[in-house]
Amino acid sequence: MILCDIGNSTFHFYINEKERKFFLHEELPSLNETICFISVNDKATAKLLSRYPNAINLEHYVKFETQYVGMGIDRKVACLGLRDGVIVDAGSAITVDVMKEGTHQGGFILPGIRKLKETYAQISPKLDFDLALKQNFDKIPQNTKDAISYSILKAIVLPIQEIAHNQTVVLTGGDASLLHEYIQNSTCKNELIFENMKGIIDANSCIA
Amino acid sequence: MILCDIGNSTFHFYINEKERKFFLHEELPSLNETICFISVNDKATAKLLSRYPNAINLEHYVKFETQYVGMGIDRKVACLGLRDGVIVDAGSAITVDVMKEGTHQGGFILPGIRKLKETYAQISPKLDFDLALKQNFDKIPQNTKDAISYSILKAIVLPIQEIAHNQTVVLTGGDASLLHEYIQNSTCKNELIFENMKGIIDANSCIA
Repeated sequence: MILCDIGNSTFHFYINEKERKFFLHEELPSLNETICFISVNDKATAKLLSRYPNAINLEHYVKFETQYVGMGIDRKVACLGLRDGVIVDAGSAITVDVMKEGTHQGGFILPGIRKLKETYAQISPKLDFDLALKQNFDKIPQNTKDAISYSILKAIVLPIQEIAHNQTVVLTGGDASLLHEYIQNSTCKNELIFENMKGIIDANSCIA
Repeated sequence: MILCDIGNSTFHFYINEKERKFFLHEELPSLNETICFISVNDKATAKLLSRYPNAINLEHYVKFETQYVGMGIDRKVACLGLRDGVIVDAGSAITVDVMKEGTHQGGFILPGIRKLKETYAQISPKLDFDLALKQNFDKIPQNTKDAISYSILKAIVLPIQEIAHNQTVVLTGGDASLLHEYIQNSTCKNELIFENMKGIIDANSCIA
């Protein structure tokens, strides 16, 4: 059984307990096992299904109740199984969702770290810096590189900490370990989406 | 006497107590009075000086001590005259500077509201929304449009409020009045840069 999480910018496979990422334009590998996937990207879904016609969309098996309109399937899968706390999926966008007594309370979407860096470069070539992501938050920045790095981290960390309000924060996605250093009461679960996809498959023995 | 503040995206004139903005590619008007300017944009400075060869760069008259390396002249001018508090210039970038007992303590640079909106659209067409900038911060967002608007405002407001820590926040720039609604102890001074430019001219009677 192979798992695949299709996002805005990558096919993210889980093959034999190992992760493999492919950008959307890249050729997909030859795979002989059953593929179960979730996707927030219709065009990429079509590409996957054209390559692997028998791939199974797990979205149809996800039971997740929420008042939120337009919640991506990746966010729903990430939230499965958490009773109380905040789930942060830090990729090209950073989704933040709040669970209380097993019920989804709503959430929000911050731009990802790399995208924010690119935004500065688009504002002015004078703001095009590599990031210094080891920031000492006790000091007010004294140069442009630190000013940008500090701002990116604060713009992400403070809204998450405010909503978490001392509750557990579960971090997943490519920038999880980076954010972990700055967010109190946070734990990293790099493979959260794949673990929860396995849970869905186990609970629906008819799938494969 | 005409004043001009040249930013990343506009020539911002002050003519007969009225503001007039021109985008960088636009033709500049015919002006017969003396023009005093500041600029963070070398290419636009050259364009201004080629149109008005006698325009006076006020940067040479600004006395502003700071440890910060690479501080734009617009930020220095905005900070002039404030003894204690935080100065926020909310344009295509949002600069945030801290003054204490008349000394600059450092600062940081957030992306502007419009630029952040564009960043979402670049991440995914599913995140391309007009903003709903009247947000009720007591409610966790329940749809994508609110999720994006909430995130943009929180990403800007929380870092400013944290650094201000109950001190006065002086807001200027195109999005000053919008941020004013969300930032405690804030006042809007839309013409702060021009007022401080006038102060520099008055203090250097030799200029014009």
